[in-house]
Amino acid sequence: MSSVIEQLTESFRRFPGIGPRQAKRFVYYLLRSHNGDLEALARQILDLKKSVNQCLECRRFSPKESGQTLCRICRDPNRDHSLLMLVEKDIDLENVERSGTFGGYYFVLGGLIPVLDKNPEQSVHARELLDLIKKRLASGLQEIIVGVSANLEGDNTIEFIKNLLASSFQLSENELKISALGRGLSTGTELEYSDPDTLKNALKHRE
Amino acid sequence: MSSVIEQLTESFRRFPGIGPRQAKRFVYYLLRSHNGDLEALARQILDLKKSVNQCLECRRFSPKESGQTLCRICRDPNRDHSLLMLVEKDIDLENVERSGTFGGYYFVLGGLIPVLDKNPEQSVHARELLDLIKKRLASGLQEIIVGVSANLEGDNTIEFIKNLLASSFQLSENELKISALGRGLSTGTELEYSDPDTLKNALKHRE
Amino acid sequence: MSSVIEQLTESFRRFPGIGPRQAKRFVYYLLRSHNGDLEALARQILDLKKSVNQCLECRRFSPKESGQTLCRICRDPNRDHSLLMLVEKDIDLENVERSGTFGGYYFVLGGLIPVLDKNPEQSVHARELLDLIKKRLASGLQEIIVGVSANLEGDNTIEFIKNLLASSFQLSENELKISALGRGLSTGTELEYSDPDTLKNALKHRE
Amino acid sequence: MSSVIEQLTESFRRFPGIGPRQAKRFVYYLLRSHNGDLEALARQILDLKKSVNQCLECRRFSPKESGQTLCRICRDPNRDHSLLMLVEKDIDLENVERSGTFGGYYFVLGGLIPVLDKNPEQSVHARELLDLIKKRLASGLQEIIVGVSANLEGDNTIEFIKNLLASSFQLSENELKISALGRGLSTGTELEYSDPDTLKNALKHRE
Repeated sequence: MSSVIEQLTESFRRFPGIGPRQAKRFVYYLLRSHNGDLEALARQILDLKKSVNQCLECRRFSPKESGQTLCRICRDPNRDHSLLMLVEKDIDLENVERSGTFGGYYFVLGGLIPVLDKNPEQSVHARELLDLIKKRLASGLQEIIVGVSANLEGDNTIEFIKNLLASSFQLSENELKISALGRGLSTGTELEYSDPDTLKNALKHRE
Repeated sequence: MSSVIEQLTESFRRFPGIGPRQAKRFVYYLLRSHNGDLEALARQILDLKKSVNQCLECRRFSPKESGQTLCRICRDPNRDHSLLMLVEKDIDLENVERSGTFGGYYFVLGGLIPVLDKNPEQSVHARELLDLIKKRLASGLQEIIVGVSANLEGDNTIEFIKNLLASSFQLSENELKISALGRGLSTGTELEYSDPDTLKNALKHRE
Repeated sequence: MSSVIEQLTESFRRFPGIGPRQAKRFVYYLLRSHNGDLEALARQILDLKKSVNQCLECRRFSPKESGQTLCRICRDPNRDHSLLMLVEKDIDLENVERSGTFGGYYFVLGGLIPVLDKNPEQSVHARELLDLIKKRLASGLQEIIVGVSANLEGDNTIEFIKNLLASSFQLSENELKISALGRGLSTGTELEYSDPDTLKNALKHRE
Repeated sequence: MSSVIEQLTESFRRFPGIGPRQAKRFVYYLLRSHNGDLEALARQILDLKKSVNQCLECRRFSPKESGQTLCRICRDPNRDHSLLMLVEKDIDLENVERSGTFGGYYFVLGGLIPVLDKNPEQSVHARELLDLIKKRLASGLQEIIVGVSANLEGDNTIEFIKNLLASSFQLSENELKISALGRGLSTGTELEYSDPDTLKNALKHRE
């Protein structure tokens, strides 16, 4: 049987962006830490989910508030009911929210859909998404913005979502619009290195 | 007096992106080259401007063609006369042209305008630009697209060009529109790392 | 009071090489993990020190073996009793051991001594080191190799160790030699970029 | 036929470390330069070899001095006649000389020998090397130091030189020693990341 050092190294290796060398450094860091710090860390890990609520509507994680099953954003009646933005992950939602540029509601997909994904419904939690849309349509939803990164998986995800909604709801473009984030020059992008797709969109969206 | 090795190292140091170490490597590379190659290189440098024409209209450089003062693009009557794109440098123009996304005419500014630039007219060759616009207005010009990189100098340049044209021509928006390339998500941009300005524009240009 | 998300993010920030962004990614990674995985991780962290033994002689960490206070290396009577190598940390020891180039015993200092360190004895666990040396001298120790990295802190540590041993033991060079790892060209080092110190040693150790 | 722009871009592409994009940037940089600067650059390139002497002994390049066929180092009678260091290129020689750690004479090989090189004699200018060694043996040469980088080509070159000298001169180790630069920890090398070969040599050369 493998040792606890090896088991813990293996656990840390599964952390995002961590290789075997750094995983081992983490273990030695903990071996040199005070017992109290180790106990606190273990306690935080055990308490994490208990103290955190996954919002029943947008599926994002936030500190649990007693008696609440929805997060602050989904509970807020003063946001724009006509807009719902789908994002890949919590950190994307936080970045958009921090930018102060969007006033509608969100849904965290939990992932993008790789090309040839065999189970795309599950990758983006399609059932929960459809449930939420049904509910939001009743309170004024007019547009779904697929807010995903500008790459192959993002494009594939946009395509899937459009098809999913078309087959799930018989709604005209007037009743429910589905849009993707606009493409163009990002801050810092240099013209010399821009790809044709970015240039085409930058021209199309000129103003 | 400094040696030719030092003088040539100093010349190469002024090349874009070259530090003292690489400049010296260039000199040793040449020292190990055949005499014929050195003579060919010197000849190419001396012939460069003689064999290259700077287009009288767009100011870009291209191989001299006998009897021609304009480049192939500026001579081409089949391009879109209603559009003129201003770019910073030749390589930007080449990248846009290669992308096949723009069918109008160009003008190479020769630089962007740093904030607090004391001589902005000269940085972007304002006189030649105004001359060209006057001429193009006579043949159907309706929109000027300022096609510069999405950064501080780019924004400053757009601002300067707008003011320059407003004070030089008394034309309504209907007669001559001035636009900038659209901002949004570039190919590969991740939502997690997008700045508020990019997000704001990506939302505005959603489609 | 801060939320568990914030507390755990803060804990991960103290891991070696981890910034605030990655610390937060770790927390979201755990939020998406199964409860069983979180419990296993917390358990491993709590069990880590219990299941790991810090060797009473070399001070390195290794899986606890019942009834043993010394690690496999320190217990092994067939290693070279005349040699003791001092290394900064467990991972250094593992790398040397894996290289198969050293057959003596080790001592893990636990750190190097920064210039102007106020408490150098503590940084390198001087008391435990002196105890071990005393014991090893009785069983044939003839040479102590200070096996630290080739940088300022490493040099400072070598100096400190030499002075410490000189003042602690009245032994001639014949009785106890103190050496440092040899300097020279590392694998992959290019002559063009070598510093004078490396060149001087590479010349001195030519063979 | 290709244009001068293309020809000059192609010439710059052959410069060490320069790709097609930067080569083109160089050409545009020259197009924007003053005629006088272009003429000066072409002149420096043409004058380079005329004003530079390749030393008849060590083969390094240095500014021509009237009436001299040897460089300052090879002419200097006060250096250590017993030592000759073979280096790959001029910049290596300059780095060793600047370090002030070597007082003997040099020979610039002009390259290293890749494994499976079909023409190793030519890669290192074997004939000129043997001529020089013959001459230096007459004035006290006792040791040849092969001062090449610590990599596969360097090792292959050391092997080739040893065989070449063994087959060319019937000299005992007492009469002519052949050595390579010592291996060990370079300045900045960390023990954690050192390869077995570096560790083995660092142990061997401990002091």
